[in-house]
Amino acid sequence: MKVNNFVYYNPTKIYFGNEQLIHLSEEVKKYGDKAILIYGGGSIKKTGFYDKIMKVLGDANIQVSECAGIEPNPQYTSVNRAAKISRDNDCNVIIAVGGGSVIDAAKVVAQAHFYEGDCWDLVTKKVDEPRALPLIVLPTMASAGSENDAWAVISNADTNEKLDPWHPGYQPTVAFIDPEITYTVGKYQTAVGVADIFSHIMEIRYFVKDHKIEFVSEMMEVMAKNVVKYGTIAVNEPENVEARQNLSWISAMITGGIMDVGVVQDMALHMTEYGIAAFYEISHGHGIAILFPRWMQYILSEETASVFYHFGQEVFCIEKGLKAIDGAQKTIEALGDWLYHQMGLESRLSAFGVEETKLHDMAVKATENCGGVLHSLTTLTTEDVENIFKMCL
Amino acid sequence: MKVNNFVYYNPTKIYFGNEQLIHLSEEVKKYGDKAILIYGGGSIKKTGFYDKIMKVLGDANIQVSECAGIEPNPQYTSVNRAAKISRDNDCNVIIAVGGGSVIDAAKVVAQAHFYEGDCWDLVTKKVDEPRALPLIVLPTMASAGSENDAWAVISNADTNEKLDPWHPGYQPTVAFIDPEITYTVGKYQTAVGVADIFSHIMEIRYFVKDHKIEFVSEMMEVMAKNVVKYGTIAVNEPENVEARQNLSWISAMITGGIMDVGVVQDMALHMTEYGIAAFYEISHGHGIAILFPRWMQYILSEETASVFYHFGQEVFCIEKGLKAIDGAQKTIEALGDWLYHQMGLESRLSAFGVEETKLHDMAVKATENCGGVLHSLTTLTTEDVENIFKMCL
Repeated sequence: MKVNNFVYYNPTKIYFGNEQLIHLSEEVKKYGDKAILIYGGGSIKKTGFYDKIMKVLGDANIQVSECAGIEPNPQYTSVNRAAKISRDNDCNVIIAVGGGSVIDAAKVVAQAHFYEGDCWDLVTKKVDEPRALPLIVLPTMASAGSENDAWAVISNADTNEKLDPWHPGYQPTVAFIDPEITYTVGKYQTAVGVADIFSHIMEIRYFVKDHKIEFVSEMMEVMAKNVVKYGTIAVNEPENVEARQNLSWISAMITGGIMDVGVVQDMALHMTEYGIAAFYEISHGHGIAILFPRWMQYILSEETASVFYHFGQEVFCIEKGLKAIDGAQKTIEALGDWLYHQMGLESRLSAFGVEETKLHDMAVKATENCGGVLHSLTTLTTEDVENIFKMCL
Repeated sequence: MKVNNFVYYNPTKIYFGNEQLIHLSEEVKKYGDKAILIYGGGSIKKTGFYDKIMKVLGDANIQVSECAGIEPNPQYTSVNRAAKISRDNDCNVIIAVGGGSVIDAAKVVAQAHFYEGDCWDLVTKKVDEPRALPLIVLPTMASAGSENDAWAVISNADTNEKLDPWHPGYQPTVAFIDPEITYTVGKYQTAVGVADIFSHIMEIRYFVKDHKIEFVSEMMEVMAKNVVKYGTIAVNEPENVEARQNLSWISAMITGGIMDVGVVQDMALHMTEYGIAAFYEISHGHGIAILFPRWMQYILSEETASVFYHFGQEVFCIEKGLKAIDGAQKTIEALGDWLYHQMGLESRLSAFGVEETKLHDMAVKATENCGGVLHSLTTLTTEDVENIFKMCL
């Protein structure tokens, strides 16, 4: 089968490993000597990572302005605040330290630095600003893979919207990925990060209808199998270096483009999860984890069974030789067992206070930016999404 | 096991698929309007590819100077000739159309454009020239993967040397990879190209001593398995689009850096093959194909057996449950069967006129740039290399 034509381009330079921080100042100085440091709730101060970064920058006489307090599901208001600090201090390079939320916010700050209006204009694509400051990112957990792509997810609490714009200026210039930094990520955050990585492989790039290059699909099976293996290890042994380096590198590789070749991403589950996040405080990866097996169950049919069963054999070692529908069922059960028992994630939306009366509104929210229909292996209407939510209650 | 620290950076923009040539002129015009077109023996004229390229460039009013006649195992004299044409015509972008030899030559031309002396000074690193013209490459076969890396292999018939310098300026700016262009590559050239791709995975990146990230090794097994599968198909069905697109994308991906993570490349077989090429006209990929199973046989031991057997299970479906040494032996036989029977490659150096009296000189040549010792899974002295040559006679 002929694959769709595609363009592959990823200019992000990645330093991988510990002790790479010594190269931070030389990278900053390629672009200037006034940096804005963007981070979240301050856990980088507790772990000592903040001090290490400030020492490297201070030793190189780099002037640092700061914007702390980027929230999970980052708000456009935080982007506006950071962009103002960046402009007011004539910053010429952005340094983002944190999880996907901090990095996503920093991406839009890089662009908003050049736009004095409300950054929501940029997020909604009402305005285009082609310029962006160079962006250096230091991810502190393996999860979104935002350190190696040009997507940003930004929320607007005023309009109850969560959008995911793509812009070439959002591609990080340099990323420092230190798996050992993620030792301090707790059991729960590790688990939801792992669920997010898993969905980036399986939902967004593997369970799609497009013609793919066969070996690329097989490489995704290898990645998913290792996410299952090392995800479980990392949850139980936070300082297992092999587990952390596998997860860190997989999360970056999967978003970096090499697995996208010819694939048209539809992100049905991600869109569905946005319907939850619009109304409830629930971590993105956890929402995905609750949805994934139920989505598979809902769309299980003669048509999808063989795809699910093949995946189960490769990733969960489901025995060969079963009828496709039985193998698929065992696959779904194995996925649920991994997420809810081995990884210890709560399996029900009701545990987060989600009420049945809200499910319809959530489903409308999930599909409204996609013309009321989500695509992946099958088509999901708003009603389908509501039915999947019911299975998750 | 902790992986070595590494830096990953690959800014080459790749257009993949047919009908992408329409983007050639827009890419050229980012850098200028005077291009030098570098190619080989003229097969691109027979296939009509030359006319298509010239039409796209002509329609965009791009002035084209030409340098034809780059030979297999490109000579430094050809690089000097092309660089002079480029300088004399004030070219500001280089377009290379052909196999790895043409692309390798063009890489050094990009740098030599700025250096009026002998390009051999650059190849030997006697002189550094940090500047390089932007380089746009259009590979016509799947083989060296030169379209996606910063290595160039250049020969010097005067000194009987073949060197492989790396320089950041050698990284192609843009690559147009059209698997359907490779339909016209004949059975023999397809087979030697496939052998070269295979060695770039297995020899250079897989059979190494370093600590690797586990899933990356597993992805290499996936790639190698698909090279075996689709290599055999492409040799027998030259217009099988699936085979050609798998081979084209694997050859580019394997050299692009994602499989290098933490690996120190030693290239024992590549160096050994240079010992052949220094004295005999034999295609690089074919030399590798003759050497590979004999090298495995020569270094087979209790220590290497389990590595070879695991590889055999993953790539050649060798049955599980054997003693490691027996499984490794079956793996070596399967590799030989694939290369010499299914792919139809001659298995003996003597068929190319290689004489036993020359083997010592060849072995000295192979090891002399590496202090007399080659490294990979084991250490090979000059005497070891000569012994391997004897097995290949």
